[in-house]
Amino acid sequence: MKRAANAGAGGRVDKGTVELGADLLGGVSLPAAVIHEAPLAHNLAWMQRFAEAHGARLAPHGKTTMTPALFRRQLEAGAWGITLATAPQCRAAFAHGMRRLLMANQLVGRANMAMVAELIAAGAEVYCVVDGVENVRQLGRFFAERDLKLAVLIELGVPVGRCGCRDQAGVEALAEAIAAEPALVLAGLEGYEGVVHGEDPAAAVSDYAQRLVETALALDAAGRFDVAEPIVTASGSAWYDLIAEAFQAASLDDRFVPVLRPGCYVVHDHGLYREAQRDVLRRRPDLQHGLEPALEVFAQVQSLPEPGLAIVALGKRDIGHDQLPVPLRRYREGGAPDATLSVAGWQVAKLMDQHAFVHLPDAADDVTVGDIVAFGASHPCLTFDKWHHLLLVNEALEVQDSLATCF
Amino acid sequence: MKRAANAGAGGRVDKGTVELGADLLGGVSLPAAVIHEAPLAHNLAWMQRFAEAHGARLAPHGKTTMTPALFRRQLEAGAWGITLATAPQCRAAFAHGMRRLLMANQLVGRANMAMVAELIAAGAEVYCVVDGVENVRQLGRFFAERDLKLAVLIELGVPVGRCGCRDQAGVEALAEAIAAEPALVLAGLEGYEGVVHGEDPAAAVSDYAQRLVETALALDAAGRFDVAEPIVTASGSAWYDLIAEAFQAASLDDRFVPVLRPGCYVVHDHGLYREAQRDVLRRRPDLQHGLEPALEVFAQVQSLPEPGLAIVALGKRDIGHDQLPVPLRRYREGGAPDATLSVAGWQVAKLMDQHAFVHLPDAADDVTVGDIVAFGASHPCLTFDKWHHLLLVNEALEVQDSLATCF
Repeated sequence: MKRAANAGAGGRVDKGTVELGADLLGGVSLPAAVIHEAPLAHNLAWMQRFAEAHGARLAPHGKTTMTPALFRRQLEAGAWGITLATAPQCRAAFAHGMRRLLMANQLVGRANMAMVAELIAAGAEVYCVVDGVENVRQLGRFFAERDLKLAVLIELGVPVGRCGCRDQAGVEALAEAIAAEPALVLAGLEGYEGVVHGEDPAAAVSDYAQRLVETALALDAAGRFDVAEPIVTASGSAWYDLIAEAFQAASLDDRFVPVLRPGCYVVHDHGLYREAQRDVLRRRPDLQHGLEPALEVFAQVQSLPEPGLAIVALGKRDIGHDQLPVPLRRYREGGAPDATLSVAGWQVAKLMDQHAFVHLPDAADDVTVGDIVAFGASHPCLTFDKWHHLLLVNEALEVQDSLATCF
Repeated sequence: MKRAANAGAGGRVDKGTVELGADLLGGVSLPAAVIHEAPLAHNLAWMQRFAEAHGARLAPHGKTTMTPALFRRQLEAGAWGITLATAPQCRAAFAHGMRRLLMANQLVGRANMAMVAELIAAGAEVYCVVDGVENVRQLGRFFAERDLKLAVLIELGVPVGRCGCRDQAGVEALAEAIAAEPALVLAGLEGYEGVVHGEDPAAAVSDYAQRLVETALALDAAGRFDVAEPIVTASGSAWYDLIAEAFQAASLDDRFVPVLRPGCYVVHDHGLYREAQRDVLRRRPDLQHGLEPALEVFAQVQSLPEPGLAIVALGKRDIGHDQLPVPLRRYREGGAPDATLSVAGWQVAKLMDQHAFVHLPDAADDVTVGDIVAFGASHPCLTFDKWHHLLLVNEALEVQDSLATCF
């Protein structure tokens, strides 16, 4: 058996060592983060198909997983590039062979600028976003001193939102400032609808998508873009349908490169995004067989100290906890994957760093210390970043690969 | 300049690369987790002195930091051993030279047992805790089959607590079960007062400490312990004074090895443990110049999109978020450490994965994109685990070392 590499420089030994081919129910140290191959493959193909059907490119947000093996799967499925959130993330993606990097964030700080300058000098195609004149001047100076060009996208925001120009006047002033910096190349327009709110959220997102389209058209009409095919990009994993529809309705792809950037879709979830996906499918009944949750954390019952209570060896160190994890299935250690035991009525009541308090129903009299419970979580980003390795498993729960992360 | 190693196996590049000697305000990619040397050194010495003054040994909980360089500092300061929470953590500590490992947790699952068996076979002195007959039988069988001895401590819990025997009868039944397993060595008694609650929490903790003492004495009187000097251990970083006092009042060290296990003390915090420490100093005015916060995360203002709002490049990926982070100081990028700018009235209103929304007071008209803000957090464990490296800095904010973690 091949042993999955997990000893890094300096003899580092991380949680997550495993023999490839090992049985998740018998030969693997738990807790372990697990990705199921079948729903993963389904999601990869599904979102690529969705983007293409709407005339858009896909640049999946890599911050979700920071897992180069998944980036490669996304590119193989047809993705145009990888989106990242920070300069170190761009550097990590480039080190693993990703060449087109959309940093959907402001590039701030001389050390981070130096990192991106190194990537550009090494041949990366990098885009970052700008939303303020001061930052534009900082970038212009930094890259001019190094005789490099930096491609930037203007970020369009919303009042009381996150980053981004609040209005048309801000966008125009920024375009002016970019034009005054010879080192900067205005390559498009960027937005993020996930911070748009309104009484009718779907309507607010559609309005915002429309503003993005109109702003792109106005910048183009004013001759502001410095590239032949400017990028127009938005979308997380909750409202991608509305963004794609607005881009398609405006036939953006005749003139621009429309780019969608969902990240969480790749493993989906058992919380926030499952809800969001239900809304997508309600809005778009033509989209059949939607995304499927692929990420789970397997952990073992550690103690049964009193009736009705199981302490499971699963904590905030192991799984995202924006919402409490959800027990999905139970197995006997060493048992067969198809002989699942009940978790009906099991409920996580509290999560500490290394322990979950699980309330059991009265009927749960067959549970034993060592029982393995598969948990789902909301918001996959904050589960991925707790692991140096995630285990890719097949339907027989055999470990097919150990996927390294690079947070 | 020496470049701090941060490229692991497979060319992995993590956030946290830095030139040693670099100026934190000029040459370092932010956000970065930072440990200040002076308060760190103070805390290391302070807690060691506290333990010794109470006739107790110190086995700092390593799960807090999982930073071998800090484990070494703790041992150099006089610690008796390192406490860990899981088998993979024990393996990581052993791989970095720690020999005496107190796993203050149940050892569950055959893969985890195999990991501990390997450590014992390799010469580690490992203790783990037990609280149920089924787990005792599992361990007894597993280690007997390998002709190894496993040292266990009985865990004493409390009703509606976490793990641990709920009453004396449970303890006695467990001691009986351990005695029936030739591979198991009953080496002491363990407890954790952090999950003890009551109307008067301090009184409840003291009562629990007293129960621990009495239970240890009763087990000893019944000849249950299999070692010459059994261990009696408890204490996190909030109630260590009450535990130490109870151990000292009973002169436990005449017969037992009393062991305290605080973890968070090493870098202390700006939230939960700061409050707890105030209570300790109120209870014990003789303890002068208490623990000092040593851990901060430095991040940069990324956007100033509208009046009264700064978006800082700091998110749930970078800092613990049981409570919202606290802005402590501000610096101009490239400026001097002593020329701090005001953060009076700055307040983190919301934390996303990669962004903090900071509300600014009306007077904050001197802030600029790129300004560096030092943030404090509550509960250091959940900041450490977000980093592969933390930067040790001196008072001039020069990077003295890059400390690798092994989560």
